[in-house]
Formats: sequence, structure tokens, C-alpha cells
Amino acid sequence: MEKPNTIAWRNRLHNTIYESNTTAGRAFDVALLVLIISSIIVVMLDSIKEYHQRYGNLFYILEWIFTGLFTLEYLLRLISIKSPLKYVFSFFGLIDLLAIIPSYLSILFTGAQSLLVLRALRLLRVFRIFKLTHFLTEMEFLKAALFTSLKKITIFMLVVLTLVIILGSVMYLVENGENGFISIPDSIYWAIVTITTVGYGDIAPVTPTGKFIASVMMFIGYGIIAVPTGIITTEMANAARLRKHGHETCPGCGREGHDKNAVYCKYCGTLL
Amino acid sequence: MEKPNTIAWRNRLHNTIYESNTTAGRAFDVALLVLIISSIIVVMLDSIKEYHQRYGNLFYILEWIFTGLFTLEYLLRLISIKSPLKYVFSFFGLIDLLAIIPSYLSILFTGAQSLLVLRALRLLRVFRIFKLTHFLTEMEFLKAALFTSLKKITIFMLVVLTLVIILGSVMYLVENGENGFISIPDSIYWAIVTITTVGYGDIAPVTPTGKFIASVMMFIGYGIIAVPTGIITTEMANAARLRKHGHETCPGCGREGHDKNAVYCKYCGTLL
Amino acid sequence: MEKPNTIAWRNRLHNTIYESNTTAGRAFDVALLVLIISSIIVVMLDSIKEYHQRYGNLFYILEWIFTGLFTLEYLLRLISIKSPLKYVFSFFGLIDLLAIIPSYLSILFTGAQSLLVLRALRLLRVFRIFKLTHFLTEMEFLKAALFTSLKKITIFMLVVLTLVIILGSVMYLVENGENGFISIPDSIYWAIVTITTVGYGDIAPVTPTGKFIASVMMFIGYGIIAVPTGIITTEMANAARLRKHGHETCPGCGREGHDKNAVYCKYCGTLL
Amino acid sequence: MEKPNTIAWRNRLHNTIYESNTTAGRAFDVALLVLIISSIIVVMLDSIKEYHQRYGNLFYILEWIFTGLFTLEYLLRLISIKSPLKYVFSFFGLIDLLAIIPSYLSILFTGAQSLLVLRALRLLRVFRIFKLTHFLTEMEFLKAALFTSLKKITIFMLVVLTLVIILGSVMYLVENGENGFISIPDSIYWAIVTITTVGYGDIAPVTPTGKFIASVMMFIGYGIIAVPTGIITTEMANAARLRKHGHETCPGCGREGHDKNAVYCKYCGTLL
Repeated sequence: MEKPNTIAWRNRLHNTIYESNTTAGRAFDVALLVLIISSIIVVMLDSIKEYHQRYGNLFYILEWIFTGLFTLEYLLRLISIKSPLKYVFSFFGLIDLLAIIPSYLSILFTGAQSLLVLRALRLLRVFRIFKLTHFLTEMEFLKAALFTSLKKITIFMLVVLTLVIILGSVMYLVENGENGFISIPDSIYWAIVTITTVGYGDIAPVTPTGKFIASVMMFIGYGIIAVPTGIITTEMANAARLRKHGHETCPGCGREGHDKNAVYCKYCGTLL
Repeated sequence: MEKPNTIAWRNRLHNTIYESNTTAGRAFDVALLVLIISSIIVVMLDSIKEYHQRYGNLFYILEWIFTGLFTLEYLLRLISIKSPLKYVFSFFGLIDLLAIIPSYLSILFTGAQSLLVLRALRLLRVFRIFKLTHFLTEMEFLKAALFTSLKKITIFMLVVLTLVIILGSVMYLVENGENGFISIPDSIYWAIVTITTVGYGDIAPVTPTGKFIASVMMFIGYGIIAVPTGIITTEMANAARLRKHGHETCPGCGREGHDKNAVYCKYCGTLL
Repeated sequence: MEKPNTIAWRNRLHNTIYESNTTAGRAFDVALLVLIISSIIVVMLDSIKEYHQRYGNLFYILEWIFTGLFTLEYLLRLISIKSPLKYVFSFFGLIDLLAIIPSYLSILFTGAQSLLVLRALRLLRVFRIFKLTHFLTEMEFLKAALFTSLKKITIFMLVVLTLVIILGSVMYLVENGENGFISIPDSIYWAIVTITTVGYGDIAPVTPTGKFIASVMMFIGYGIIAVPTGIITTEMANAARLRKHGHETCPGCGREGHDKNAVYCKYCGTLL
Repeated sequence: MEKPNTIAWRNRLHNTIYESNTTAGRAFDVALLVLIISSIIVVMLDSIKEYHQRYGNLFYILEWIFTGLFTLEYLLRLISIKSPLKYVFSFFGLIDLLAIIPSYLSILFTGAQSLLVLRALRLLRVFRIFKLTHFLTEMEFLKAALFTSLKKITIFMLVVLTLVIILGSVMYLVENGENGFISIPDSIYWAIVTITTVGYGDIAPVTPTGKFIASVMMFIGYGIIAVPTGIITTEMANAARLRKHGHETCPGCGREGHDKNAVYCKYCGTLL
């Protein structure tokens, strides 16, 4: 049976690491954020050849320091949580692990170092920090709007996907496996590049027919890029309206659409 | 005169293949969907040279299996429908035929194999599957919104088309048939690539005048890409409103179409 | 003094050519439309080298036929209008002239032929044809929405223009006149290509600083492309609402926003 | 102690230079605008090699004239304002200085001339001119809409930034530091180019995995480009509604903010 002060100590640790309502918790989150960003910057700079040659050793040391700190954090997370396994196999648990493993692997296998870029995934923790800020409501708003429009967007994307597969296959036939259309997957890749108006130009139609089909595709893409926008805008307008107006129904005239701060029905004057 | 049990059997077959309200019907649709997708994947992989060389024979066998199954499906569709000819010359009937013919043609003519990519067209049947799902309402919503805005979009596209023909022709004159602007159709193709903001860069203006005209075009494109979005968004907002409000019916004159905030019938003045 | 029947004849001709409310007028418009489109197609095909070599003579003859017909049309327009000069110097008058002059010039100067592409400008007459159709209301709607948002769009474009001039100049400094940024106008051209998300790639930043600035520009462009869309969408929504609702004010309660077909005020039931 | 007429003279000068409500003030602003634009045009033309060689001397003289006038303007601004230091270190004060310094520097150091492009920054003064025009309200409208949506846009941009860092890092791993993905910053630059649908094509994926990830990114970019549009459109619609409706004041409790269709005050129930 554990000593009570151990339990108390663990709870404090848990609040600091997992919660943000205490000063310590906030401090921890900010510190972690700074640590993550600087570790990513180091990995970035190290990936540039000139810098690697010049400051390679410094970066190497820094990376081990970050690895050490992240390992410490990982262990603290493990001991301060009730069900460590649940954390280990949670989304963030795996990301936290991915951020430290490469360094240790690099001792055994050369090149594992390069996996350090996976640390970028830890950036996702950044959005935890927003939990503390007044950005929260706005985030909730965006998430709500996106969530309600998810279904429509999914269908839309499925339609586009079918479209690019068909048009890609047709282009493979038309361009006859040449001019970069060397396979159907490549042609589909080109179709996506075209319909999303990215247009790298690494693959571009050469035959007149190909150019004609491409032109039609661009017009289609031009037209349908409006669809997701329309969907999301409509949903946002709704979300905004809902946030402003409640759904209260007037007991007098039974009509709704009153403001949140309404005391009397604006149609018949009954007390709400 | 046919035996009744034959008729019953044909009706069951018809329901299974053409309808989706029975368990068998749903199962058939799902199976078909899986079959179509896997057949397309095989065609895709076969189009990649390395894979073709390594697994060419396997793909060949698989393609014949798919052809066999699709042929069987095609025959079943023929015998289970009242007017086979109507099906044969229907949109989906032709697609279903296009999906099996190439294999048989490839026996007579080499290269006909390549037409197998037309199987991608069968993907359109995917959207039949949605009929079974709760996606239906959303699809209807999107279709409605797009349909009501079709007219406006058409005009918009005609304006853009005129614009690209004129600007393309002008660029052909300006760039003097060089730098990829080798013909008016090519210049129009470039104009479309530019105004839709795809911008491959396979053709790009070189002369100062050309660059200036291109810049103006981009600004135009930047401005007018907003038009289809505006159209579709407005229509969607309307569709959403209609779906939300419904149409109250007046107890006095029985006519509907009143606003949500209406207190009295706007036709006969009766209290709603 | 002209004979009355001459006057009558001229009026009929005027109605046929300039108006579309008579059967003859409609027929004339459609015929002209067909003529314009086919003449443009001929010019297009002639601009393709292979075709020019093979069918050059045919195209040559056709072009003279079109020139003849357009000249005839031009003369008829001249004699059937009250103030010929006003027509000659009108927008369409100049376009109509531009469509026939090149052929005659080509007799004197070789190469003037190439100016035939200017015939594409006659496509603008296409939109006259819409006047006859049920597309009219939709066109009016689009024009109204665009017109009301013109002011905002203008400001927006001015802001973007300032932005690209400044950023272009900065990039010229950063890329040090190399990598395609050979002059400020070229750098501005690049800035426009970037901020409108066209992205040819004919000019692309190479220095790290340049790439950073470019990235920032893309984010800016990503954000502000939403502005014209927002403007036009809002205006369209207004236009749609106005078209649906009138501005009538109720004599009883003095509130407006009633439907066009409203007979009684929907708030207080007063006869409108 | 200054002579009163000196003070009066300074006040007049101050109004002329800093205000626009007097005729002189308006004239000054317009003159300045013309001066700025022509000076920028000269710098632009001078940056084009051919022109520099041909008209280099002319440009040189003009630049000194502009420098002289801008210096004069700068001095006038200094003496006509109460707190010169505050102006010197203000945003526009620094820009005004940046516009004249390069010329003087070029006497000491060769090449400083090139910094003249910084004059483009003075274009920002253009928007001061709008203060005089009826564009003001529209500008205020746009600014308001953008300001209210700033928070949401910021979050959105942060999400996109995280996304491109992660996806860029992953692509660096996938493309294995080749095909232009030579460093993580470069890969992130590519990710931004892709997700904003700019798509230069200077860096493009080559490996199948890379192309697949790129395709997914494009779809994401295709979907989320709708988000800022949705945000801004919604805010603009709100701004437009507020501007249109105004806020009726209740005769009973004197509070405003009632809906346009309100019959009774929602706070005290008084008939509006």
C-alpha cells in the first residue's frame, strides 16, 4: 500500500503534466512547447548540408540534450498516470515515443538519425497550448463548422476522386504512355495536380487531344473548387447564427429564433 | 407461355441486381463495388512497367477472371430486365459493355488490352451504392444546389471561354508564334491554364508585353474565380434555409411559402 | 427627299440587323453568330502549321468568303443606321472593322494576315444573342452582383497591386537580379504569378531568403484570395434576397421586408 | 518665444502636409502620389538592362530630382510637426527616410543605388489618398470584416503551418533528400507551394510514395482553401447586415440591438 504523500505527490505531478489549470501546468506546457519548437529548428538546420558540416557536432549534442529531456518527460508521463499502457498506445503517446526512439536507434543503426524529423509530429501538441488561450472558442467554432460539413465534403471528395481516376485513365490512353503519363497512377497523379489547380508542370499534356481534355478538366476544377467553399461557408454562417440566436420557443406564439439575451418574445411580447 | 416460378425467379433476380431494398440486392451492390475497384487496381498496377514485367501473367489471369464475372453480370442484367435493348443502350449499359469488350477484342487485335482502362468508368456505379446509405440526403442537397446554380455557372463559363479565346489569340499575336505559343489553340490552352490558376509553366510568356497581358489575366482570373463560388454558396444557403424552415400552411387560405417570422398569412391575413 | 418605301425598307433592315424582337432579327443574330464562330475556327486551324500546309488554300478562300460577308454586314449596318459615324466609332463598330481590315491589308502588306486573330473579338457579340434567351435575367443578376461589388474589388485589387510591387521589388533585391529576377518588372510579374497561385515556375526563388519571402507571400495570397470571394458572395446573397423580397413598407406597423407576392403585412396583418 | 505669424504659418504647413481637409492638403497629397508613382516607374525602368544602358544618365538625373523633392518633403514634415522625433521613428517616417537615404549612400558606397527599390514602400502612402475619396467607407468595411475574422484566420494559418512542417519533414524522409527535397526547410517550402495550390514545379515528388503523399496534400489544400473564404464571407455578411439594419432603440427601456423583424422590445416587452 502506497504512502499517502506519494499519492499526493503523484497527483500534483499528474496535474502539472496532463492538466493546464494550475500555474505549474501552464508553465510545463509553455516550456514543453518551447522545447519542441527548438528541437525541430535544430533538426531543420541540421538537414541543411552547409550547416551540418559547420555545426554538426553542436547539433549532435543539442539533439542528445533534447532526447534526454523528452525521455525524462516520457518517463514522468508514464509514472504519473494511472494506466501507463493506455498512454503508451494513445495517439500522443506514440508520437512522444517516436520523438525519442530515433536517437537511441542511431546508436545501433546509422541513418536512423534521419528519422528525427518525425519530431515535427510533436508540433501537434502546440494545439494543446491553445486550450489555455482565448483562442479556444474560435477553435471550437471552426471545428464545429468543419465537423457539420464533413459529410458533404466527403461525398464531394469521393466524386472528385472518381473523376480523377477516370480522367487520369483516359489521359493515359490519349497520351499513349508518353510525355510523363507513363502509368495510370502517374496519370491520376497528374489529374489531381490539374484539378486542384496546383499545376506543377512536371507532367503536362502534349497531344492536342490531351490538351483539350486537360482544358476541360481545368474548367471542371475551376467550377467545383467552389463546392467545398460553398459547403463550409454555409455551415459557418449557420454556426455563427446559432451562436448568436438561441433556439428558445415563445410560450405565447410558439415561434423561435429569439436572441440569447431576449427576455420577451419579439413577436407577441410574451415573457419568455 | 412462361412458367410462373420462372417469372418469380426472374423478379427475384431483377430485384437483386437492379434494386437495393433487399438484403440480396445490397449484398450484390457491395460485391460489385468490391469487384470493380479491385479490377481497376489490377489495371492500374499492370500499367506500371516494373509490375507488368514481374506479375504480368498474374494480372493477365486476373483480368480474364474479372472479364468473366463482368460478362456474367452483363448477361444476368440482360435476362432479368423486361426491355434488354433499353438497358443495352442506356448510359450504364454502354459502360458495362465497355468494361468487358476490350478483353475479347485483345484476342483479335493486340493493344486493345490498353482499352481496359475504360473500366475506370464503372466507378460511376459507386454512387449507386450511396443510394443505400445515409449519404443520400446530403447528395440530394448538393445536387439540388448545383442544379439551381447550373444556369448561372453556364453563363459564367461562356464568358470565361470567350475571354480565353480572345486573350489566347492576342497572346499568339504578341508572342509571335514563339515560346510555346505555336498556334492559337495552344495559346488558348495556355490562357485556360493561366486563368484557372493551374499554371503548368509548360508555356509561359517571354516578351514584356506578353508578361503584362498574362499579369492582367491572372488578376482577372483571381477576381472571377470568386464568381462560381459566390453563385454556389448563395444557392446552398438558400437550399439550407428551405430545408430548415419548411413551409407553414395558412389555416385560412391553405397556401404556404410563408417566412419563418410571419405572424399573419401574407395572402389572406389570417393569423397563422 | 427619300421615297417613303425606301424609309420603310431601311427601318425593316435596321430592325433586322440591330434589333432582335422580330423573327428576321433573331435569324440574323443566329446566322451572324454561326458565321463568327466558324470564321474563328478557320483562323484557329490555319494557325496550326500542319493544317496550314495541307489546307492552306482552302482556308485562304474561306477567309475571303468570311471577309466578304462581314464586309457586306458592315455596309448594311452603315446604311441602315441613322448616324453611321456614331456606329463606326462605337465599341462594336471598331471591332466589326477590325474583323475585316486585316484581309484587305494583307493584299498590301504580307503578314497582316496574322491580325485575323482579332476576329476573336467579335465573339463578344455572342452575348447579344443572350438578349433573346431566358438567360437574360440570370445575366442581369450576375452583372448586378458584380457591379455592386466593383468598388470593393477595385480597392482589393489596388491593395494586391501595391503588395506585389513592394514584394516584387524586395525579391529583386534579395535574389540579386539572378534566377530570373532580372529586373523589377520581371520580379513583379513573378510576384503576381505567385500571389494569384498560378505558379508557372518559369521564375522561382533560389536563395533561402527568397524562398522564405515567397512562402510568406503564398500564405498571404492563400488568405486574401478569400476576400474577393467574400465580397461577391455577400453581394450575390443581397441581390438574391432583394429579388425575392420587395422593399414595401407596411402602412400598419411600418416594417418592411415583405415578399413580392405579399397581400397582407406578415407582422400585423394590415392590408399592404 | 515664436512670433504668432510664424506659428500660423507652421499650422498652415502642417495642415497642408498632414491633413487632407483643405484644398492645399488635397493638392499636396495628389502631387505626392504622382511623384511617388513616377519615381517608382523610373526605378523600375532603370532595373531593365537595355533601358539602363540607353537612358541610364537620364534616370540618374531624375532619381536625384526625386531624391531632392523627397528630401524637401521630409524636411518640411520635420519642421511642421510638433514632435519631430515621434514622426522620424513612426512607420511612415522610416519609410520616407528609406526612400531618400539610398541615393546619398550611393555617393559613399557603390551599389547602394539598388536599395532605391525600397521606394516602392512609399506606395503605402497611396492609401492615405483614399481618405479623401468615397472609397473610405468601403475600405472601412473591408478592414472591419478582415479584423473580426483575424483571430480565426490566425488559427487556421497556424494549423496549416503545422501541417506543412510535418508533411514537409515526411517528404524529406520519403524523397530521401533528393529530387530537390535537399533539406527540411526546402521540403517545407515545397509543402507550402503545394498546399497553397501555387505549384511552381521547381520541386516535385518523383517517388511513388512521394507522389501519393503529394496527392493527399493537394486534396487537403483543396478542401481547406475553403476555410478562410468561409470565415471572411461569414464576417462580411455580418458586417453588411449590421450596416444595413442599424439598431432600433426601444422607447420603453431605451436599449437597442433589436432584430429588424422585432415587434416588441425583447428586454422590457414594450411595443417598438
